[in-house]
Amino acid sequence: MSEDFAFRGFRKDGDTNNPLGIALAPGFAGINYPGLNTLGFALAKFNYAKGGLVPPHTHPRAAEVIYVVKGEVHVGFVDTAGKLFATSLKRGDFFVFPKGLVHFQLNVGSGHAVTISVLNGQNPGVQFSTAVFAAQPSIDTSVLARAFQLKDMDVMDLQTKFKPAA
Amino acid sequence: MSEDFAFRGFRKDGDTNNPLGIALAPGFAGINYPGLNTLGFALAKFNYAKGGLVPPHTHPRAAEVIYVVKGEVHVGFVDTAGKLFATSLKRGDFFVFPKGLVHFQLNVGSGHAVTISVLNGQNPGVQFSTAVFAAQPSIDTSVLARAFQLKDMDVMDLQTKFKPAA
Amino acid sequence: MSEDFAFRGFRKDGDTNNPLGIALAPGFAGINYPGLNTLGFALAKFNYAKGGLVPPHTHPRAAEVIYVVKGEVHVGFVDTAGKLFATSLKRGDFFVFPKGLVHFQLNVGSGHAVTISVLNGQNPGVQFSTAVFAAQPSIDTSVLARAFQLKDMDVMDLQTKFKPAA
Amino acid sequence: MSEDFAFRGFRKDGDTNNPLGIALAPGFAGINYPGLNTLGFALAKFNYAKGGLVPPHTHPRAAEVIYVVKGEVHVGFVDTAGKLFATSLKRGDFFVFPKGLVHFQLNVGSGHAVTISVLNGQNPGVQFSTAVFAAQPSIDTSVLARAFQLKDMDVMDLQTKFKPAA
Amino acid sequence: MSEDFAFRGFRKDGDTNNPLGIALAPGFAGINYPGLNTLGFALAKFNYAKGGLVPPHTHPRAAEVIYVVKGEVHVGFVDTAGKLFATSLKRGDFFVFPKGLVHFQLNVGSGHAVTISVLNGQNPGVQFSTAVFAAQPSIDTSVLARAFQLKDMDVMDLQTKFKPAA
Amino acid sequence: MSEDFAFRGFRKDGDTNNPLGIALAPGFAGINYPGLNTLGFALAKFNYAKGGLVPPHTHPRAAEVIYVVKGEVHVGFVDTAGKLFATSLKRGDFFVFPKGLVHFQLNVGSGHAVTISVLNGQNPGVQFSTAVFAAQPSIDTSVLARAFQLKDMDVMDLQTKFKPAA
Repeated sequence: MSEDFAFRGFRKDGDTNNPLGIALAPGFAGINYPGLNTLGFALAKFNYAKGGLVPPHTHPRAAEVIYVVKGEVHVGFVDTAGKLFATSLKRGDFFVFPKGLVHFQLNVGSGHAVTISVLNGQNPGVQFSTAVFAAQPSIDTSVLARAFQLKDMDVMDLQTKFKPAA
Repeated sequence: MSEDFAFRGFRKDGDTNNPLGIALAPGFAGINYPGLNTLGFALAKFNYAKGGLVPPHTHPRAAEVIYVVKGEVHVGFVDTAGKLFATSLKRGDFFVFPKGLVHFQLNVGSGHAVTISVLNGQNPGVQFSTAVFAAQPSIDTSVLARAFQLKDMDVMDLQTKFKPAA
Repeated sequence: MSEDFAFRGFRKDGDTNNPLGIALAPGFAGINYPGLNTLGFALAKFNYAKGGLVPPHTHPRAAEVIYVVKGEVHVGFVDTAGKLFATSLKRGDFFVFPKGLVHFQLNVGSGHAVTISVLNGQNPGVQFSTAVFAAQPSIDTSVLARAFQLKDMDVMDLQTKFKPAA
Repeated sequence: MSEDFAFRGFRKDGDTNNPLGIALAPGFAGINYPGLNTLGFALAKFNYAKGGLVPPHTHPRAAEVIYVVKGEVHVGFVDTAGKLFATSLKRGDFFVFPKGLVHFQLNVGSGHAVTISVLNGQNPGVQFSTAVFAAQPSIDTSVLARAFQLKDMDVMDLQTKFKPAA
Repeated sequence: MSEDFAFRGFRKDGDTNNPLGIALAPGFAGINYPGLNTLGFALAKFNYAKGGLVPPHTHPRAAEVIYVVKGEVHVGFVDTAGKLFATSLKRGDFFVFPKGLVHFQLNVGSGHAVTISVLNGQNPGVQFSTAVFAAQPSIDTSVLARAFQLKDMDVMDLQTKFKPAA
Repeated sequence: MSEDFAFRGFRKDGDTNNPLGIALAPGFAGINYPGLNTLGFALAKFNYAKGGLVPPHTHPRAAEVIYVVKGEVHVGFVDTAGKLFATSLKRGDFFVFPKGLVHFQLNVGSGHAVTISVLNGQNPGVQFSTAVFAAQPSIDTSVLARAFQLKDMDVMDLQTKFKPAA
């Protein structure tokens, strides 16, 4: 079927009325874009309210190029030497996040923004930097307290905040 | 340098005042986007005049996803069983061309169109279906005449038309 | 079974009594050579009548080495810069066609010829340069007319000639 | 040289007299084990004081198996669905951390502990979960405050704590 | 299950009361360590009596790093130029055997020895240098006699010795 | 240069007047066939006197297909379960040797024989089963004596026979 190779799931804008001000739409072989199967790609679209933030995260199994469809977006990644590579992109610009490195996106324009990402793997996965606080079962509080140099009480607070809804 | 990982070369529209009505801008590690080096991507932008055509071609070393930034574009590829997979895309839609298969794009909208392609290889290469007529030194006319079931005279005509400018 | 790893399907010569003067015999994991499964090879044998031609084609998923068993065969490929690499081979000679690039073979000897090809992929696929005329459903005639700088009438003629038998 | 293929850099124990109570020794092709070049491995040894912690981190370019040489070590990783896989290992036990996923190790025994890790990549890289606080130049404080649901002041505190020594 | 990713099969020592004085314990995805599935590793532990020998063998589908847990072990491999790379390892030392090359291990210490190997493939396979004498059905005696420059009678003797138990 | 992609080094027959009755001609990117560079192939031709034997060997870095150009050749490989897969090939037949497994070829016809091999790696390497006797510096005699269940004296004899000429 020709339509298997087409993907029309990015036409509608997502609802960004949430604390981070973002909405994610995937285009994945295993979810809603069967024609990508075995072809080595996955897609993602983000809508951003003014100030919307895609918080720091990694993709363990793919590199990513991101394209600004609308607005002005600040993007950055941190390499394994601890150096931040960041800049602001305007409509039509691209940026690349190497495989497995932590990166983020922030709408720094005066209105709504839209980006499209293409990842070079069928099943890239995503893991936010806060995954250690959200993990279930919980990671021992004292491990995170020492790792982040926080008090146990502050870590417990984070673990409560990031605990996934049942 | 952060700017190595950014690419701003697609902001300007290309000049489509030519017989095919298209303009190509590349974003390649080896040409104008050094940050892509070793990361497994190459980029391409097409501008299309009304009716503009990217004629049938293959990429020998990458698969491609294409995204419609503006307008309405008819796209298609032919698989190794001879089947055509084709459809029309609107703004925000994607299509995927598997590695090495012949494909084309045609602006079928009422105005200008723009597409962005992401290829999953650093050096994908491109070869048009007419490469056999354009090759230098020339492929023997009688070979092409038999392959395409054309008269020698008609092939010579094609070889003249597609001969690259000196 | 030891015989799974042997292939004896190239002993007989094929019938070259056809317009191109060639006969193809495959040696594929998925067709007639089960022992190749997962080992990264596919085989092909061509018989050529005097003047027999394997018309320009690509393999989207493998490179190929070709070996002349009998006769004298002219071979060539076109690279992505449009350059033709071609030469004539005698019995015992090899040539290599890089992955995904268009190539062809022509019997230029005074009699029958035979070649054996080894491809470094289990499922290399094949697509002739005329695939755009043969595709079903048909590619829009005007697309091909513009791509090949031919009249619509001439393209329709090619589409009729290359239309696969029902 | 035979000695190029041997590695004797793990004989001595490292100094764990530091806040995390750990010492790392690498065995890398590019640092101190030239014989690994092109062979697809990297090595790491950890010494742990009682309670010593290797805080949550990822390797963007390799999976890892870890082996307990001495003591009792609690290990865990979080998958991309947010699930924690964790257990305690005794002397002689192994655990595996899939490529790119966040993981940690904690000495839960009554004395010193030692682990050896083998990674299946020559240049696996490492990135701690706190890399977003340590990055230089700094990631904008408000980005991290929103990502981690912390006050700006608390993030600045973390950025100060994790700032690399000049 | 967290336990799928842990492997505790190396705790017990194997029985080395046999002619070679060795005991092998595997840690394979397909046998006893399901969590390794798709992660690109296999494990092996050897116990060695005094003088115990792991005779020359190859792994057709993986490279190997070997780690000395206890004792003193002489290890070596032969490269494709016929050069021997060999040395003696003490507790805590590593050595690497490149993929597909013949190698061996010998306990040269004054007591029992233990090594742990990590291979960078899920299904590395093993083939001893004596496999040509042990193969069933038997390789023709005269082939081996000529290959090894032995008398037929001596080869038959080896074929009898290495014939697998029914 | 077109000639870089052609290989004419197999036209002449090699001198088989030696104890094994064979002659080898390579077609390697790094030796005499520069056009193979990066394309993933290596070639080899064997001439066989009557009874000529290519003794058991492995290729650590490639699988191989072998084609009989002339004569009748008995071929076989041993898998990692110790099973021999062997058969006799006639002119035009193929056999496949999986990567890294020991295999051999024997001219069982009434006259001269010729085979051509294609390997799916640029630098496959070769290691004969007798490499353990030929290695320089020598492998300790007692290691080989125990591995092959031979007397030291018999191993020393083999080491002398297979010692490479200075």
